[in-house]
Amino acid sequence: VKESSASSMDADLGEYRHFMLKEIYEQPAAIQNTLSGRVDLENVRDCISGNPQKLAQVFDEIKEVQIIACGTSFHSGLTAKYWIESLTDLPCQVEVASEYRYRRQPKRDGVLVVTISQSGETADTLAALEKVKSESYLATLTICNVPESSLTRESDFALMTVAGPEIGVASTKAFTTQLVALQLLTIALMQRDSANAEKATVMLNNLKRLPALIEQSLQKDASIKAMSEAFIDKHHSLFLGRGELYPIAMEGALKLKEISYIHAEAYPAGELKHGPLALVDADMPIVAVAPNTRLLEKLKSNLEEVRSRGGVLYLFADENADIAEQENIHIIRVPEMPESLVPIVYTIPLQLLSYHVAVFKGTDVDKPRNLAKSVTVE
Amino acid sequence: VKESSASSMDADLGEYRHFMLKEIYEQPAAIQNTLSGRVDLENVRDCISGNPQKLAQVFDEIKEVQIIACGTSFHSGLTAKYWIESLTDLPCQVEVASEYRYRRQPKRDGVLVVTISQSGETADTLAALEKVKSESYLATLTICNVPESSLTRESDFALMTVAGPEIGVASTKAFTTQLVALQLLTIALMQRDSANAEKATVMLNNLKRLPALIEQSLQKDASIKAMSEAFIDKHHSLFLGRGELYPIAMEGALKLKEISYIHAEAYPAGELKHGPLALVDADMPIVAVAPNTRLLEKLKSNLEEVRSRGGVLYLFADENADIAEQENIHIIRVPEMPESLVPIVYTIPLQLLSYHVAVFKGTDVDKPRNLAKSVTVE
Repeated sequence: VKESSASSMDADLGEYRHFMLKEIYEQPAAIQNTLSGRVDLENVRDCISGNPQKLAQVFDEIKEVQIIACGTSFHSGLTAKYWIESLTDLPCQVEVASEYRYRRQPKRDGVLVVTISQSGETADTLAALEKVKSESYLATLTICNVPESSLTRESDFALMTVAGPEIGVASTKAFTTQLVALQLLTIALMQRDSANAEKATVMLNNLKRLPALIEQSLQKDASIKAMSEAFIDKHHSLFLGRGELYPIAMEGALKLKEISYIHAEAYPAGELKHGPLALVDADMPIVAVAPNTRLLEKLKSNLEEVRSRGGVLYLFADENADIAEQENIHIIRVPEMPESLVPIVYTIPLQLLSYHVAVFKGTDVDKPRNLAKSVTVE
Repeated sequence: VKESSASSMDADLGEYRHFMLKEIYEQPAAIQNTLSGRVDLENVRDCISGNPQKLAQVFDEIKEVQIIACGTSFHSGLTAKYWIESLTDLPCQVEVASEYRYRRQPKRDGVLVVTISQSGETADTLAALEKVKSESYLATLTICNVPESSLTRESDFALMTVAGPEIGVASTKAFTTQLVALQLLTIALMQRDSANAEKATVMLNNLKRLPALIEQSLQKDASIKAMSEAFIDKHHSLFLGRGELYPIAMEGALKLKEISYIHAEAYPAGELKHGPLALVDADMPIVAVAPNTRLLEKLKSNLEEVRSRGGVLYLFADENADIAEQENIHIIRVPEMPESLVPIVYTIPLQLLSYHVAVFKGTDVDKPRNLAKSVTVE
């Protein structure tokens, strides 16, 4: 049903210089397509394909969620852990597929195993799924962008993203539509308990605002491009986030690594003082994703330390946040929005930052060195 | 009882140039002291201090383990997750304290909460423990090096490391004695099931060999020093490990960051192709901890990719491993040893590597910039 609406997102560059930029700008449409018909469901569970009777039974019996993925998809899974554990009664573990497949896990009852992969052909994720199926599990569900892929065939259930084809090796719209699908899954899991009904409805209504909020964040493009010039001659960067923004910082750092070849690493902001602070000097820009004021308050003591070493801070913060631009603190202000949408929307400026740094550096943005689009070998 | 034997490890430098080097060389003694009297216990559980009746009851009721720590102690906790989940029937989660304390966790029954901290005064870990105590939990246990610390006072049980005072800001002997304590805890948890009795006894006997194996690994000092010269002019490095060697790679990368200010980042080796491979060039040395041949086999395809980009590989491998020194592959060979000891022993050459790089660079090894020994503020 969704494939027709995705067909406008074809393999032509159109007016764009790179597929990556085109795909960044396609996100409002890709997210709209992924939401379409789903946010109005009474039972969000119904957007999951597979045997409906079995699905109903599985939903009654889930006791925990195990997410398995690689690379960018691993980061969307980590974000979902924060959502699932804060909004439902289900523990959620997330693990890299190449690790999961080669180690023993204790037996657990009622585990919904969720795999995530844009292509549905990631070798390590498929192998981990095979391992799961040889052991005890409740059911398998995949979040995937390709309907006829191996992961969709091999899983009991699928919650498809409708991002359309993604050509750029560095994933953008596949990531944000995965986040949307994972938030729909979280809402479906919330709806198992009637006490959550109202909150679930609020989150669904928030999701309807998401395409417009992504559009708004894309309007920051020019100021992000201007900011990105400062990274051209840098060798490193630290990306800080806290809570569900920590995986978003990880994804931001991965983008910068992949296409600009700048060594960027993400840390949960609270770990800075346990080691990485030693790296900070004038050559090590710090990027912080700090939408809420609580993180900002906690960051302020770190900021002083960073500034006293000549470190420069690039902050993505709420436009109402109580912090001023000053020497060595540069701020991109993002409109206020519902908390449930923050990780998805804050992804966009980080994508644009990496893109512009890479273009300034003259790298092969759509086909960065050493990398393949789908990793179909181990 | 153990404090007297630790008193020889005092705050004098003696023949050593830095406390860090002294503390690296104290590890056979520190580990011996941490093992002393414990490896001969019939019930290893008896090395845990606290009310013995309550401990017996708690051990009957544990359903899972939650580890909470920061920095280096977080890495020892991550290693323990691999041990606990592969050797017992208990799921184990590990989380950074600054993240754990600020998010909601679903209620779970039978959770043994384990905090890890050298000083026992780490502010975030103490705050996470306070949060745990306001919620549902089975019991709290701390792994700590200071008997009268806040964490030992505030926990139901303690399993003390006997590392003696650690002066160097970059933790060395505290980390390896934490690993020893966590392996003792794993064995105690294995002994809940009589089917594990034989394996538990083998692991205890293996531990008796650990001080001598650490001594042997220290004899590689001169060749590691020679290898470390290649890092002096580098800005970055990647550290690769797999399974329980991944947290050891993380700790190796953290050491290099902390004292040599080289931006080192660890990856589980299987994730290399999902992004970080783009960073690899002649200026980005790759350190791999690859004791077992299975990882070596899997690494070989990555190695070719690394070498074709001019990347240089520094490998810590078993002396019987089927791989030869060649252009751009440098190998430090470590004696064969029981699998259960590998993560502890392979820590030593990584500590020496960081130490020598830092000395060559002329940094303040014992007091690296921006860092404090115990992080007693948030």
